[in-house]
Amino acid sequence: MGKAGLPVSPLAPAAFPDLPEIAGVEFASAAAGVKYQGRTDVTLIRIAPGATLAGAFTRSSTRAACVLDNQAKLAQGGDAPQGAAIIVNSGNANAFTGARGQESVDAVTGAVAQSLGVPAGRVFSSSTGVIGEPLPHERIISVVDDLTRDLDAGGIADAARAIMTTDTFPKGAFATVAGDGGDIRISGIAKGSGMIAPDMATMLVYVFTDATIPAPLLQQALTGGLDSTFNAITVDSDTSTSDALILAATGGSQAAPIASLDSGVGAAFVTALHDVMRELAQLVVRDGEGATKFIEVQVTGAANDGDAHRVAMAIANSPLVKTAIAGQDANWGRIVMAVGKSGAQADRNRLTIRFGDMVLAENGWRSPSYDEAAASAYMKNQNLLIAVDLGLGAGARTVWTCDLTHGYIDINADYRS
Amino acid sequence: MGKAGLPVSPLAPAAFPDLPEIAGVEFASAAAGVKYQGRTDVTLIRIAPGATLAGAFTRSSTRAACVLDNQAKLAQGGDAPQGAAIIVNSGNANAFTGARGQESVDAVTGAVAQSLGVPAGRVFSSSTGVIGEPLPHERIISVVDDLTRDLDAGGIADAARAIMTTDTFPKGAFATVAGDGGDIRISGIAKGSGMIAPDMATMLVYVFTDATIPAPLLQQALTGGLDSTFNAITVDSDTSTSDALILAATGGSQAAPIASLDSGVGAAFVTALHDVMRELAQLVVRDGEGATKFIEVQVTGAANDGDAHRVAMAIANSPLVKTAIAGQDANWGRIVMAVGKSGAQADRNRLTIRFGDMVLAENGWRSPSYDEAAASAYMKNQNLLIAVDLGLGAGARTVWTCDLTHGYIDINADYRS
Repeated sequence: MGKAGLPVSPLAPAAFPDLPEIAGVEFASAAAGVKYQGRTDVTLIRIAPGATLAGAFTRSSTRAACVLDNQAKLAQGGDAPQGAAIIVNSGNANAFTGARGQESVDAVTGAVAQSLGVPAGRVFSSSTGVIGEPLPHERIISVVDDLTRDLDAGGIADAARAIMTTDTFPKGAFATVAGDGGDIRISGIAKGSGMIAPDMATMLVYVFTDATIPAPLLQQALTGGLDSTFNAITVDSDTSTSDALILAATGGSQAAPIASLDSGVGAAFVTALHDVMRELAQLVVRDGEGATKFIEVQVTGAANDGDAHRVAMAIANSPLVKTAIAGQDANWGRIVMAVGKSGAQADRNRLTIRFGDMVLAENGWRSPSYDEAAASAYMKNQNLLIAVDLGLGAGARTVWTCDLTHGYIDINADYRS
Repeated sequence: MGKAGLPVSPLAPAAFPDLPEIAGVEFASAAAGVKYQGRTDVTLIRIAPGATLAGAFTRSSTRAACVLDNQAKLAQGGDAPQGAAIIVNSGNANAFTGARGQESVDAVTGAVAQSLGVPAGRVFSSSTGVIGEPLPHERIISVVDDLTRDLDAGGIADAARAIMTTDTFPKGAFATVAGDGGDIRISGIAKGSGMIAPDMATMLVYVFTDATIPAPLLQQALTGGLDSTFNAITVDSDTSTSDALILAATGGSQAAPIASLDSGVGAAFVTALHDVMRELAQLVVRDGEGATKFIEVQVTGAANDGDAHRVAMAIANSPLVKTAIAGQDANWGRIVMAVGKSGAQADRNRLTIRFGDMVLAENGWRSPSYDEAAASAYMKNQNLLIAVDLGLGAGARTVWTCDLTHGYIDINADYRS
């Protein structure tokens, strides 16, 4: 069972991975009763002096106070010569809370700064939960000193569980890169895609590495991976006010500093970082509300990458495509529909549609090789590939999504908090 | 029960309206066995010589052969000095059928032209049903002469029923305008928003008037109403390859010709036409798959009308908003989320959110007058108003949608054709 009592997603991995410790990062979690009693709902992460930081945040125009605060702090630069911290609470999103929202952020990050002895300008925060209710920040502040005492380099697995809301499994991913003089480790955790009705889910991601890397390069490595990872997933097309990804590099590795992303080690680091980001993003989809199928949508042959993204997201967000997949129905006509409505340049006579290895449609019509029985059998798989080639250019994009089932309606309409 | 055996939508009107006959328009329907036996699936409409025509069609890049054919024919002008006809079939969309699609359209419209003695270039057609299967056009052609014999000026109610697929009720609307020298009548029918898994629904709309009006003015009157009627509704954000609206003016009224849309009668005609279009559009929403609530989303105070449309559609298409409404949950936080993700200019501190007459949120926070019990009670209504004022400018738009329920999943995932 997940933290909120929901059954674990059928798409969950067998076990939480054995994430490598990152020298210079420690974790502690506690139950502060932000909304519910008896649930771990606050996590503190301490990052050692000398680390560099990068981040990515929701583009929502109604984003939460903590997101605005994180963005303002990172805009001052990503260096943390005196160390940094991240504090995360569930149960309350501190979103749409007027001027009190920033007051709460200041109170919480100020308390963490004092307890840890790091500048308040290097204390980042995330809140997830109900919108429009004032954050009871005094409850969070009351556990900060306990959290500081409990900090533990081995606490990342507990943290992955503590930041869950209606997630049904904790999410972690890691990679190791051979640096010059030693290994570079990357460990990340994420929460997302669960709902607590009437609350709104949020995707929160924290990635740590012991690489030594200047903040601008760290941000560049992060930003360069967003389009192919977290911007390439969708569960229901709805965007949280609080999505946040924070990446910290502690310099704790024995490996030489990364001075360029174009060097052998630099490029390997970027690849490994993006692999971790992609794996975390896919885990969020695998925990999508009510999901029973994990779907990769590959679009190729588009006039440009932007058009490929539009087509891929039109397919991945289409309720008709997602319900057909839930019904194990090889309904490629709905793929044609989604391509048509996407707004991207398309020519139906050049369109090719594949499910797995099977060509279902080509040259503007059902393929001569189309086999209804084989297509129906394919749809019974838990992991599905839908590939669309537009036959126009070199634009390509792959995105991941899940199906739309009665479970989604249950979680978002029938359940009450 | 609807034609396909589905229970009638709880949002259906009490009865089909008593549509006035339009001099110069006749209807006939028959069962041709296009896909199913024993169901009326072909409708023929004859329009008298001297009529003028206008149309509006899906912008899908994968639109069906009949849509492309209708557009090409209307591009030649809207006059029909020798009369015109419309033939509609359900059971097969003739979409994504390669070159054979146009061959089928030519065969069917050619047979109608011969039977009625009107030019093939004035015979319009619509097909709705499964995608990617060749249209068995010989079955349609085999009933054309029978249809011609059966044409009847009083047949519009039967036609409204004959064009249904999984619609659960027939849809009609009318208006009468006082012209110079006599009344001008407008009668329209529509089908839409039902699904036949694994088929894709289509919205088809036919509106007739006895006004005497030049084709360019008729098209202008039609086009000017689209944004506030058929482009202002959504059930699930998915767009058919076959949506079509055809408007015919027969000149059968005793009223003087309409020479300008700015004259008193011209303006009254435009208003009445848009009223009929809006009513038909709303009836389509009221028959949305699984719908239990009819929702009007009013957006005001946007920087411009385009932004107002983006916000209104972001709310109306949000699965989280639609499931909250299905759950009768006054979850205004999800409205904040949808505004934020819309891409429109927004300032959370200027946002006002109303449900019915109740202000739920204003000035960037929950309203001081917010009453949870009253808001929850309001959500039990079948017709709901969600009003959002962005506080930025004069941009405004109203759209209509329905909720997202288990019924939607049933119809689109669990049922099979």
